Amino acid sequence: MKFEGLLHIMKDGINRSIYSSFSNNLDNRTDTDGGGDATLDMGSRSSLHTGLQMSEDEHWEMNYHEAAIYLEEGLNNEKFDSHPSSPEELPAYLRVHNPWYHGLDLLASLVLILLAFTEDPAVPAFELPVWAHGTIELLALSVIGIELHLKLKWIGWGTIFKHKRTMLKGITLLIMVLEAVVVLCRQSSHFRVTRALRPIFLVDTRHCGGVRRFIRQILQSLPPIIDMLGLLMFFVATYSLLGYYLFTEHVDNGHFQTISDSFVSMFVLLTTANFPDVMMPSYAKSKWYALFFILYIITVLYVLMNLMLAVVYETFTRIERDKCRALLLHRRGAARRAFRLLVSRRAPRAVRLRHFAGLLRHYAPHYGGLDVYLMFKQLSRSGGGGLSRAEFANVYEVFALRWAAQAARAPWYSASPLEPLGRAAAVAVRWRYFEHLVYAIIIGNGVSMILRVFEAAGDLQDSARLLCASWDTWLFLILFLLEAALRIMASGLSAYLESGWNVFDLSVTLLALLGAVMLTIAPKLFIVVMFRPLRLMRLYKLKKRYRDVFGTLVLLSPLMSSAGCVMLVMYYFFAIIGMELFAGYDLRNCCINTTVEDFYKYSENSSTPLGYYYLNNFENILTSGVSLFELTVVNNWFILMNAYATVAGQFSRIYFMVFYLFTMVVLTIVVASVLEAFRFRIQYKRSTTKRDEEKLLHEEVHTSWEEAQRLGASGDLAEELRAHLPPGMQVTFIGTRPRTKEVLQRRMYQADIQKWLAEEDDSEDAPPSTTVTSSEDPLSPPIIQQPDSENNHQIRTGYQL
Amino acid sequence: MKFEGLLHIMKDGINRSIYSSFSNNLDNRTDTDGGGDATLDMGSRSSLHTGLQMSEDEHWEMNYHEAAIYLEEGLNNEKFDSHPSSPEELPAYLRVHNPWYHGLDLLASLVLILLAFTEDPAVPAFELPVWAHGTIELLALSVIGIELHLKLKWIGWGTIFKHKRTMLKGITLLIMVLEAVVVLCRQSSHFRVTRALRPIFLVDTRHCGGVRRFIRQILQSLPPIIDMLGLLMFFVATYSLLGYYLFTEHVDNGHFQTISDSFVSMFVLLTTANFPDVMMPSYAKSKWYALFFILYIITVLYVLMNLMLAVVYETFTRIERDKCRALLLHRRGAARRAFRLLVSRRAPRAVRLRHFAGLLRHYAPHYGGLDVYLMFKQLSRSGGGGLSRAEFANVYEVFALRWAAQAARAPWYSASPLEPLGRAAAVAVRWRYFEHLVYAIIIGNGVSMILRVFEAAGDLQDSARLLCASWDTWLFLILFLLEAALRIMASGLSAYLESGWNVFDLSVTLLALLGAVMLTIAPKLFIVVMFRPLRLMRLYKLKKRYRDVFGTLVLLSPLMSSAGCVMLVMYYFFAIIGMELFAGYDLRNCCINTTVEDFYKYSENSSTPLGYYYLNNFENILTSGVSLFELTVVNNWFILMNAYATVAGQFSRIYFMVFYLFTMVVLTIVVASVLEAFRFRIQYKRSTTKRDEEKLLHEEVHTSWEEAQRLGASGDLAEELRAHLPPGMQVTFIGTRPRTKEVLQRRMYQADIQKWLAEEDDSEDAPPSTTVTSSEDPLSPPIIQQPDSENNHQIRTGYQL
Repeated sequence: MKFEGLLHIMKDGINRSIYSSFSNNLDNRTDTDGGGDATLDMGSRSSLHTGLQMSEDEHWEMNYHEAAIYLEEGLNNEKFDSHPSSPEELPAYLRVHNPWYHGLDLLASLVLILLAFTEDPAVPAFELPVWAHGTIELLALSVIGIELHLKLKWIGWGTIFKHKRTMLKGITLLIMVLEAVVVLCRQSSHFRVTRALRPIFLVDTRHCGGVRRFIRQILQSLPPIIDMLGLLMFFVATYSLLGYYLFTEHVDNGHFQTISDSFVSMFVLLTTANFPDVMMPSYAKSKWYALFFILYIITVLYVLMNLMLAVVYETFTRIERDKCRALLLHRRGAARRAFRLLVSRRAPRAVRLRHFAGLLRHYAPHYGGLDVYLMFKQLSRSGGGGLSRAEFANVYEVFALRWAAQAARAPWYSASPLEPLGRAAAVAVRWRYFEHLVYAIIIGNGVSMILRVFEAAGDLQDSARLLCASWDTWLFLILFLLEAALRIMASGLSAYLESGWNVFDLSVTLLALLGAVMLTIAPKLFIVVMFRPLRLMRLYKLKKRYRDVFGTLVLLSPLMSSAGCVMLVMYYFFAIIGMELFAGYDLRNCCINTTVEDFYKYSENSSTPLGYYYLNNFENILTSGVSLFELTVVNNWFILMNAYATVAGQFSRIYFMVFYLFTMVVLTIVVASVLEAFRFRIQYKRSTTKRDEEKLLHEEVHTSWEEAQRLGASGDLAEELRAHLPPGMQVTFIGTRPRTKEVLQRRMYQADIQKWLAEEDDSEDAPPSTTVTSSEDPLSPPIIQQPDSENNHQIRTGYQL
Repeated sequence: MKFEGLLHIMKDGINRSIYSSFSNNLDNRTDTDGGGDATLDMGSRSSLHTGLQMSEDEHWEMNYHEAAIYLEEGLNNEKFDSHPSSPEELPAYLRVHNPWYHGLDLLASLVLILLAFTEDPAVPAFELPVWAHGTIELLALSVIGIELHLKLKWIGWGTIFKHKRTMLKGITLLIMVLEAVVVLCRQSSHFRVTRALRPIFLVDTRHCGGVRRFIRQILQSLPPIIDMLGLLMFFVATYSLLGYYLFTEHVDNGHFQTISDSFVSMFVLLTTANFPDVMMPSYAKSKWYALFFILYIITVLYVLMNLMLAVVYETFTRIERDKCRALLLHRRGAARRAFRLLVSRRAPRAVRLRHFAGLLRHYAPHYGGLDVYLMFKQLSRSGGGGLSRAEFANVYEVFALRWAAQAARAPWYSASPLEPLGRAAAVAVRWRYFEHLVYAIIIGNGVSMILRVFEAAGDLQDSARLLCASWDTWLFLILFLLEAALRIMASGLSAYLESGWNVFDLSVTLLALLGAVMLTIAPKLFIVVMFRPLRLMRLYKLKKRYRDVFGTLVLLSPLMSSAGCVMLVMYYFFAIIGMELFAGYDLRNCCINTTVEDFYKYSENSSTPLGYYYLNNFENILTSGVSLFELTVVNNWFILMNAYATVAGQFSRIYFMVFYLFTMVVLTIVVASVLEAFRFRIQYKRSTTKRDEEKLLHEEVHTSWEEAQRLGASGDLAEELRAHLPPGMQVTFIGTRPRTKEVLQRRMYQADIQKWLAEEDDSEDAPPSTTVTSSEDPLSPPIIQQPDSENNHQIRTGYQL
């Protein structure tokens, strides 16, 4: 039975490492003097399970493949318990770990999400009949279902109970399929709040790893937030009580009519949205009542809310560190597992170049032979013929390096017919006043623009044309293009585009050019006036603090995009619920005799300056999005809440209050993450000189053809290397890694990292050594133990990943 | 001439230390075999200047006095260049450093500030005729003037040019006196915005040191804030331009009519106060216009404002550290200067008990002989007969200790007739379920209270009485009083009141009792309903996170009160200007045909729910304060701004915008300081165990009568000590220091502190050694050098203040 076998493997999976060394030892015994390298893990195990006889090469291919899978799992932070544990599972694994699979998954979940545009209440332009969107939904759901089935077939159905996310996904899928069928049968949508759960599928896709991490971070930050909310709510409740007793009798405004009114008013006041309106009636009665409100705002808003931020910030910083630690140790574990599969019996402590190249053939087929060789050289610090376990543990660090021969650093034009031009440009750019000149031109552009703005008289189109398509615009555009051309000439296009500031310059200049052209063609297209001032931003490069700020933004961008996705998912969730609850209500002229009456006064020829609020509704997913954004910004949010409380019942307030709390939590975490990132960057900058950083981001490798041969380069690899390594010459290659947050973290947490690794070694060493040397397994030779102890020694003395 | 002498001293002041050692050496030579201890500094110098012959005791008294002044200057972070440099200056110095002087200073500046209540536009209840408040003002100003004169007489008029704060104070004083005279002559107030500068006098008083420090911190944080504001304003301006072109033609709402309208709208949108109103007209035209506003808010509010906070936070943290360093080094310098005055020729490296006691007689006369002796013992780690320079440097640390003999830690009732009662109470309190019981009672109180709230039917007075003076209230009050009585019985009143939580419990219980009694007497006094729920806060003690939060609040309280004072000063400043500019305008029914028209609609029997905004005006200092608070809270602040822009001219917007920027800056710094304090506390808690803290806050001294005699206790001191130290017995004393931020900082910055001290020693040692050993002064023996080098050695090897 297939199922039994899987269960058997599952059980085995628990002490896989023991089991591996087991089979390894068995192997050592049976194959003690084989002609080639003896395979260690995969080969022996697969024959154990399937009874197939494999050739040595096949053995090794298998091992490369499995090692590559381990590395992949390490990279993606996947748990090893979904690792394929027999060759039969491999096809299933590969089917699931395949760009097409991931793409289809993403597509299906995006289609599902976009269905909200077409389902009733639909965005007018996208409306579809029920049978159409029902069919699309069922289709997308079945794609997801089939993919889930494939995945579970390989990791085993049992895992679903251990893996909450997959379980949630499965249950949601089930409900959704049922509901989609019901919709198709009844040919009409029912009250389907479960649609709000659709983003689950999106979040579960491979591409949303960052989003999942951010959600996990939010969940981990929740306990302190909830504690602080508890404290906050205590004050809100106490003040509500007091407010009720103070104001209910002699104030006519409805803010404190009942205790629940009072609570709502104080809750809204927490967001300051109804201040000072809530105070004014009582303030008119006696000036001293202002004290009540002032004290409340100071306690709740200025003290407690700031403390909440502080608590979240502290938690966030701690979690960030833990995350870094977990990721590091997981990758190290993956590298160790891969290492075990790549060593041969003859040299059980070292991975040789041939096997390293084999691994990379599977792990990253896009690397050329030179890259592979240089990575190997870079890893092999000891200079021996292979990579020790400790050396191999750094494997993820070298993957990020991009190699170039030092000779390639010569100017691009050195072997080109454009040489004189390039040389002239280089001289011009290197001229000491070149930068000053550029800044002068930028300032000139800014001044002329400001003059144009004040000149702007009479017709709007004329003024726009004056601003963005007059002779001075063209003049400055030409100067900027000239500057860009000079720089490109001097350094070559690719080197030019490496600097973010250059990309910004060029794109802004091109945008302004485009804008000027557009404005000449279509004088109504006012949006292009934006593009001219943008060039002024270049001035911010001048000051260190701005560079820090922009650098932080770059560092933050992955996190910010995750946060943005989380916000969008939250918006989707609340928008669906909002539409299901409130789509049917028309707010025009609603709320007569309430405090928000004025905002909803409507007449065809809208004469009042207010009275547009009926537009903030839940008519379709787009207007819902805008309404929710207004709730996020918080100002005047109570107007929406009060309106719906009037037309749809008092309990709809819960929806708005809960949404407020959700956004507050997410935004607080966003603020905390910005703080953390900035502080991190500044501390990094302070502790790292320009030269330290140069060292951190660049690696040098000196090598020669002879050395490559000595290290065992042969076959295709040798062919490829010969093109780059002229015999008898030392060549130097420079490897450059991008400046990601991880690289910086590794530098900043240096001391911690050493501690973590040592701790992990301690905790890891103890159990296996007792297991292996136990009487259970009389065959265990010390051979397995040795690399560990050697490794430990190295780790404790130096810095090793 | 007096003046010449002062100038001479001023010149000398620059290389005072060289000069001191000079006179010291002279002394050594002339007085080489005197009977008693030879005086070193003050004595010899004063005789040098005045030619007076002093007795040995007088010499020493002089030295004690000057050393005490040095320590005082170190404590108050005053510069040493205002140190009295001759005995004649001493009376002037003492006159200025006198509680009466400080009190009078504070009083005069408070009176000056409070004059704003009485001057036109006055608070009705406090209005005074012009001659009255003019006279009071002149009186207060002359008090301040006389005090300034006294101070300058002693530090020298020349210092005024070096000391910006004093110069500013002098100039302001001059202008104010002139204006006050003019007011008295004309018998009417003119346009006196200079009144806004009155808080300068308050800030300059001795009691406002914290406020001055906070202001300095704000000023130091300003450069990064201004940079960020520049970036912010660039975006505001760019979006204003785009907004103008996009919306000016087809939107009728006045938000984007001209470029300056557009700028104001975008500036207000930066505070979100006019969102979504500013968007609605264009949103009604096309839904896509929402994108413009959403993008703007995301860039400016969610990205840039948060980055601003991050920048300020980073700066604030750095400044905090620098402040700690400067304070530490200044105190150390003061201790060194004092040390030089307390050593005798016979033992030039050690301060003896007799001289230490002499110092304390002047520095802190309230200490008893036992305290003095224990401090000396605590400082003298080496156990020798005197304090070395390094030991003496810790002098500030021991001043904070409060001593008690270990025997005194026995229960309070051990020698009292109430012993059986106390013992029983102690048993009850120590019962393992006692705390549980207390919490159960608190929860019971909470539940009964909530039930009462929902019960609250019908009459308000009845429900208030049910809530706060019904039988269950009394029951729980009695239980709480019983609990407090038990605890007091068990630990004694003073020990009971040492815990902040106990004080909170007791006061809340007494307040609730008072409330219940009040409500029974005057059923209209609803404010007392607040007191019953407060007891529930005790529940927050249960959880660690809340304890951290409250602990941070305690740690923050000095800073927060400084921040509060700064806010008040700022309010005063802007309130005066606001009154001078806007007091004359009546806002009732103003602003017809503007967007804020509705908010100012007024009729005698105010029927509209809005229409109270005319109350937010600058009629007198109190209403101005409330109006400014509303501007601080930011919500709807543009309504006030627009109203005054309509009635008082467009330029009045500047006032409101500037005020917004000011409050934003101060509030950002407050947030940063909260973040810093919380992070600091958490890190401290994490790195410090309960036992470490115990050690940090407590010091133990073992001593005996024999040791005291050996150390040279004689005369009155010996008399006092004999009462506490029975001959032939070792007694242990425990010194306890309060847990202030400084103590925690010393623990957290331990490593830094050692570095700072070492650095300072290096930079300090170099110049004197070259000066002293230069050929200029052939008399210099190595005797002066030795303590330095000995001291350095000790500092580099161990932790020494």
